[in-house]
Amino acid sequence: MTFHSQVLNNGLQIIGETSDSARSVALGFFVRTGSRDETAEVSGVTHFLEHMVFKGTPRRTALDVNRDFDRIGAHYNAFTSEENTVFYAAILPEYLPQAVDILADILRPSLRLEDFEMEKNVIIEEIGMYEDQPMFAAYDHAKRAYFAEHPLGNSILGTPESIRALAREQMQAYFERRYVAPNITVVAAGNFDWPRFVAMVLEQCGGWNAGASGRQGVSETRGSGAFQVIPKSKVTQEHVFLISPGPPVESPLRYAADTLALALGDDSGSRLYWTLVDPGLAESADCSFHDYQGTGSFYTSFSCEPRRTEENLALVLQVLRQVQEEGITEEELQQAKSKIGSRVVRGSERPMGRMQAIGMAWTYLHEYRTVDDDLKAFDAVTPAAIREVLDRYPLGQTTTLALGPLEALAAPRANGKP
Amino acid sequence: MTFHSQVLNNGLQIIGETSDSARSVALGFFVRTGSRDETAEVSGVTHFLEHMVFKGTPRRTALDVNRDFDRIGAHYNAFTSEENTVFYAAILPEYLPQAVDILADILRPSLRLEDFEMEKNVIIEEIGMYEDQPMFAAYDHAKRAYFAEHPLGNSILGTPESIRALAREQMQAYFERRYVAPNITVVAAGNFDWPRFVAMVLEQCGGWNAGASGRQGVSETRGSGAFQVIPKSKVTQEHVFLISPGPPVESPLRYAADTLALALGDDSGSRLYWTLVDPGLAESADCSFHDYQGTGSFYTSFSCEPRRTEENLALVLQVLRQVQEEGITEEELQQAKSKIGSRVVRGSERPMGRMQAIGMAWTYLHEYRTVDDDLKAFDAVTPAAIREVLDRYPLGQTTTLALGPLEALAAPRANGKP
Repeated sequence: MTFHSQVLNNGLQIIGETSDSARSVALGFFVRTGSRDETAEVSGVTHFLEHMVFKGTPRRTALDVNRDFDRIGAHYNAFTSEENTVFYAAILPEYLPQAVDILADILRPSLRLEDFEMEKNVIIEEIGMYEDQPMFAAYDHAKRAYFAEHPLGNSILGTPESIRALAREQMQAYFERRYVAPNITVVAAGNFDWPRFVAMVLEQCGGWNAGASGRQGVSETRGSGAFQVIPKSKVTQEHVFLISPGPPVESPLRYAADTLALALGDDSGSRLYWTLVDPGLAESADCSFHDYQGTGSFYTSFSCEPRRTEENLALVLQVLRQVQEEGITEEELQQAKSKIGSRVVRGSERPMGRMQAIGMAWTYLHEYRTVDDDLKAFDAVTPAAIREVLDRYPLGQTTTLALGPLEALAAPRANGKP
Repeated sequence: MTFHSQVLNNGLQIIGETSDSARSVALGFFVRTGSRDETAEVSGVTHFLEHMVFKGTPRRTALDVNRDFDRIGAHYNAFTSEENTVFYAAILPEYLPQAVDILADILRPSLRLEDFEMEKNVIIEEIGMYEDQPMFAAYDHAKRAYFAEHPLGNSILGTPESIRALAREQMQAYFERRYVAPNITVVAAGNFDWPRFVAMVLEQCGGWNAGASGRQGVSETRGSGAFQVIPKSKVTQEHVFLISPGPPVESPLRYAADTLALALGDDSGSRLYWTLVDPGLAESADCSFHDYQGTGSFYTSFSCEPRRTEENLALVLQVLRQVQEEGITEEELQQAKSKIGSRVVRGSERPMGRMQAIGMAWTYLHEYRTVDDDLKAFDAVTPAAIREVLDRYPLGQTTTLALGPLEALAAPRANGKP
């Protein structure tokens, strides 16, 4: 595997990892913009814009976009997060020129008014679909409760109201401000020729507007500490989130934070698994670490029969307190490392996995990391590093949100006071 | 990549594909037994037994099984189909000995009575969960309607009644008859040492009972031609399946059959997509080809608002008739080949994908095929081969099942009379 990078005059970044043993190529356009870059008036515009990108350009109708991807047998899609909008395709090596042509073309979308109005219904349906998934709804509300006025609390999908109220001109203005060349990284991984790839990207994207990159409102937050219950009578299980602070993506502590979260709340063999799931007290229990630009957080969650919520919440807080005081055992650390090593390696076996990994690392840190770099970083996690994470980001400093049949829930005495 | 195979004295097959560039190993135990090998009295026993395999052995409790897999960071699971029960794990190369030890051990399960009775509830819950997914329920009923008395119509999960009535001794007898060494293939793919792997398997499995392999009731079927409506008032959409005959797994026509199904009913850019989904007449439309030992079939399906069912059914039959008469276009053929090529290559990029592919090919055909062999076989599909599939397995020879709010549905005149 060999790494390559180049910057065009307009600021567009191009990176690639070539591998002779690969038999396909994964291609991605990473736009550094997400829900945290939205104002309240345009809530949901980033995700809506991601949809509109597939609706055509001066050169292609929406049908042409579909047909052209299909013709080259591309596996393609896109996603929007708090911080990134990513468009990608996996293809056989011989189709890379066509894939670059399609993706680069659609990233300058026409945003036709008729498509824009029609697509609003699709977005509003999607919002409804997610609202019907109680775990997702609880996550979204919990994030809002934790981040409060911090822009990371912004909803990715927006609301039916914000989507209906959105004008095409607002999306156009957002596009022109955020989809500028210095905010975009074009990434390829797999079997391809680097100089020819750069030439293709230059030809397609060399004329894109430069402009100011980066984002406003990057600050650390430790959460509101709120304790909130959202009654939903139609839901059968109670879904509870506890969010606590963690290191940001720039911190070398993120490897220890990931390891700690896995030991605490992996879906098998973790502290929360043995405490809640194995004895049948909860249907699910999980802890995961999310790192963002400037801040990070641990998301601890469980779902259970409503009548068990109070007891389970007390158990979770007890687990968090015990880990806060004693850390994790040597055996838990080793097991978490085995699992992470296995995931890192398996995730890297496809060009698609490498493309995502190097694209994210470059977007956030302008850094290239090999699979071995990541394996070594996880392998080097010590009990002392776990201790440092716990000391700097106490697990007990929780913001809590419950969504489900319960009308109310007593806040445990120790909450927020580790 | 290098292929290896060996047979132990008791008849157990061992195969492997070693690859120096891989960074992990995937390991699978393929047991050639599934719902088609069940009698009505023990309906669901294969799938239930798959669960019981994880419940422990004389050497391991159920907890030990979980913990031992977790300790080596294994990504592990199992599945049961009409014809196979497969247990698998993906691990880092250094953990292959442990993975062989765990999987070989659990394949000789204790089937403790207490676990057996407890697990019945889990199975019955799983049956309920699938019954709540109307597309799955429709598929299951359609398969039964098509295969009628043929054992491929047997339900994989069984019914709550058949599970409740099952005695531990019946499962034990089924296990002793079906989990014999000659019915099992142990498969590895990725980075490992073949002679050492064979030695491990020999040590763990060399003492397993021999016995009669194979199965009863392998015959071709062309389907009952039934037209059935199952009213379900709680479901909002109508779900319709049309099943027609296709080549068996032993037939070289299976590559053309796969290609034809993709052109007809892939989830984007196919005949059915453009006819039903793109204009918004149906929420989904699909065609896929399943090949079994001795017989095969095309599953064409769609879901839509109930009031549109009749019109959509007529449209689907029109598409089938047109393809039956004219075949598919050169452009459709090329597009389907591009998609298949891309899928074959992407599916092969992980040891897990290769393990599944070589394990299935060996279980069914005692044949090793490289990725290039598969790519060439698909690339060689001609309009004449598509024509041969259509002539030998007419698309109009359908068995139809609708499940949803509708109480009744008029059988189109042309149904079953191509």
